[in-house]
Amino acid sequence: MRTVDIIEKKRDGGKLSPEEISFFIQGYTRGEIPDYQASALLMAILFQGMDEEEIASLTDAMRLSGEQIDLSRIAGVKVDKHSTGGVGDKTSLVLGPLVASCGAKLAKMSGRGLGHTGGTLDKMESIPGMRIDLSEEEFIKQVNDIGIAIIGQTADIDPADKKLYALRDVTGTVESIPLIASSIMSKKLCSGASAILLDVKFGSGAFMKTLDKAKELAETMVKIGAHLNRDTRAILTDMDEPLGLAVGNSLEVKEAIATLKGEGPKDLTELVIKAGGIMLEQAHIVSDHKEGEAKIKAAIDSGAGLDKLKAMVESQGGDVSYIDDPTKFKMARFALEVKAPESGYIRRIDSLGIGVSAMKLGAGRATKEDAIDMASGIVLAKKVGDYVEKGEVLALAHTNKDDYAEVLRSIADSFEIGKERPNERPIVYGYIK
Amino acid sequence: MRTVDIIEKKRDGGKLSPEEISFFIQGYTRGEIPDYQASALLMAILFQGMDEEEIASLTDAMRLSGEQIDLSRIAGVKVDKHSTGGVGDKTSLVLGPLVASCGAKLAKMSGRGLGHTGGTLDKMESIPGMRIDLSEEEFIKQVNDIGIAIIGQTADIDPADKKLYALRDVTGTVESIPLIASSIMSKKLCSGASAILLDVKFGSGAFMKTLDKAKELAETMVKIGAHLNRDTRAILTDMDEPLGLAVGNSLEVKEAIATLKGEGPKDLTELVIKAGGIMLEQAHIVSDHKEGEAKIKAAIDSGAGLDKLKAMVESQGGDVSYIDDPTKFKMARFALEVKAPESGYIRRIDSLGIGVSAMKLGAGRATKEDAIDMASGIVLAKKVGDYVEKGEVLALAHTNKDDYAEVLRSIADSFEIGKERPNERPIVYGYIK
Repeated sequence: MRTVDIIEKKRDGGKLSPEEISFFIQGYTRGEIPDYQASALLMAILFQGMDEEEIASLTDAMRLSGEQIDLSRIAGVKVDKHSTGGVGDKTSLVLGPLVASCGAKLAKMSGRGLGHTGGTLDKMESIPGMRIDLSEEEFIKQVNDIGIAIIGQTADIDPADKKLYALRDVTGTVESIPLIASSIMSKKLCSGASAILLDVKFGSGAFMKTLDKAKELAETMVKIGAHLNRDTRAILTDMDEPLGLAVGNSLEVKEAIATLKGEGPKDLTELVIKAGGIMLEQAHIVSDHKEGEAKIKAAIDSGAGLDKLKAMVESQGGDVSYIDDPTKFKMARFALEVKAPESGYIRRIDSLGIGVSAMKLGAGRATKEDAIDMASGIVLAKKVGDYVEKGEVLALAHTNKDDYAEVLRSIADSFEIGKERPNERPIVYGYIK
Repeated sequence: MRTVDIIEKKRDGGKLSPEEISFFIQGYTRGEIPDYQASALLMAILFQGMDEEEIASLTDAMRLSGEQIDLSRIAGVKVDKHSTGGVGDKTSLVLGPLVASCGAKLAKMSGRGLGHTGGTLDKMESIPGMRIDLSEEEFIKQVNDIGIAIIGQTADIDPADKKLYALRDVTGTVESIPLIASSIMSKKLCSGASAILLDVKFGSGAFMKTLDKAKELAETMVKIGAHLNRDTRAILTDMDEPLGLAVGNSLEVKEAIATLKGEGPKDLTELVIKAGGIMLEQAHIVSDHKEGEAKIKAAIDSGAGLDKLKAMVESQGGDVSYIDDPTKFKMARFALEVKAPESGYIRRIDSLGIGVSAMKLGAGRATKEDAIDMASGIVLAKKVGDYVEKGEVLALAHTNKDDYAEVLRSIADSFEIGKERPNERPIVYGYIK
């Protein structure tokens, strides 16, 4: 087999066989196929697409490129959840404890944030002492003991994806549904869950800008899952305004705690109830996701979800007193008010603008090497649909930096204020299974 | 400027500015832009194309990537001719001396053969003593003295093209009109001619398989020439059967000599007359190419073209006695008859099949490192339109190899014999200026 023949076949619109895809992924991972052939093939895939079978083969070949996590020592259905990334997305920290408190097993490997989207690991590390580097033994034991563990990805998972992702980033080949879908799904499949719920976000702060694109990606991933015999489902959720109110690491942890107490923002609460309902159905704990939703609501009301978060924090070495008393989280030096320049309804809050502003305040990384300031970020005072008077506070910007003037302007600019009240929008737009 | 932005712009169908193209070519030539970004951009160009201005910018940037040959010390219009490559294409060895004998100046840099197409340099080297490595001084003096010199490309011409060509070969990005056109034209422009005639071949033995594709390439290159102020014209010529009868180095030189004596095959003779007529018009020696054609015919009849070939061979150190007595060329050990398996008209002679067979007999290189056997090759006994009786000789295969049996079968298979006489075909299908 020659790589150039594979490139030309795809370039000319042909269908790659599982053998050809596996030859490419194995050769590329081992360094036998050079980057310049890989990038040419990626660009050809971007233009010509891939059918269901090809994407499933690609996903499986990537999955097999490195180690697999064996969760067979955990009893029951292992559910996992993956978000395509958004602004203010602290869902895992709320949803994970809730589904675990209802009896599901969540053995989750999570990632760090880059650019305007935050990472669950970074948020967890804002709790002093919290370990995200459990050994496989510790990881499995913790899930067996308390039903949940969230850790960082171990080094040898899906090396093909790591190499391809870095290459795609610098060769203009990020925006291809087959490549995005196989990247997400291969990682998820490596981590050994029996059932996967994908939270595919769309809107200005999301990777997919439109509902149509999000739907296409979600359907593609659900089909890959079916091909590879995993119960895979997806919800399509709105990221045209940030999720909840808080954007930034410890700020989001505090909001997660509030949400587990039943005091969270409406959109986040609605999202975790809907997603949790589906995950409980996937875990065979309920026979129907509506029934699951009721169980999740009950776990909020009873405090069982909050208790589960505390158990997880404790088990992973974190200081539980921060969960009990979130005022212990260190605040940034400045908490700056961003005020409404005019009266009217909030018609839109540009997630991307808020995400980038939060990053600039210190909450995120522009490059992989950047350090994160856990206390920095933005807390919205208003959401889409709210009415504001001129001069009323739209958001608080938390930062330890002195050069915040321009960022404050960007935050204000992210709010679109108009005379007409916008239509109410749901948080979940679709459910694909 | 960031390379990834340039890639994404082209990927999305945008038009690259001269600055962006120049940034890419300079950066790539210097090794600052890696191969993997270059190949992604090449694949995006293959899919999205380039408009006239972009191709002209690309050509010019490539031209400027290395040294330029300065022909200003040669008086008069310097004409050049380039063939896109075919089987049995000894045109330069006939056409060059003919136009020079009519007063045009031909300072030509030529290439070696690879694969099934032969190179003019290899053919020239079948004449003992022939030097193709003249210094620039010697090159210019010879053209001033006798009107013609054909030499190898010097090392520092168009390094961008050398790098890109090697990359395209292994990344499935060869077959793109903008990339082919800029590769040919940048090299031609480096070599300093004032006027260029392109011989764009089409058919099974040519790079362009169809007349439409050849026309598209020719029109593109003529437009690049106009953009960059060179009198550039093109003819579209048939490569659906080999040009002339001989395929192989010294065999083709002998046919070139015969053609200069007026004893050449009809198609080759017609091609050099038509092409020569246009080149004389481009050199302002005649006011109209029809008048030029008459002058070329006269140069054949008078032996002036043959004398010019001898002058060139002598000036470049070659043994002129081989031109006076072509029987001096050493013959291969075997001259094997390929016979007609049935009676009928020759309907087609697959150029690619003949070219590959000649290569296998020893006439060509499969890789750049291969040595060439100058005496090997194929001499057709029949051309398309001829009638053969079963058992009559179709071709003679000349070789020094013993394992020729399979090649002989391939040669026979390259002839398509049928009951119906095929329509007569011209050699030149079009003229674009």
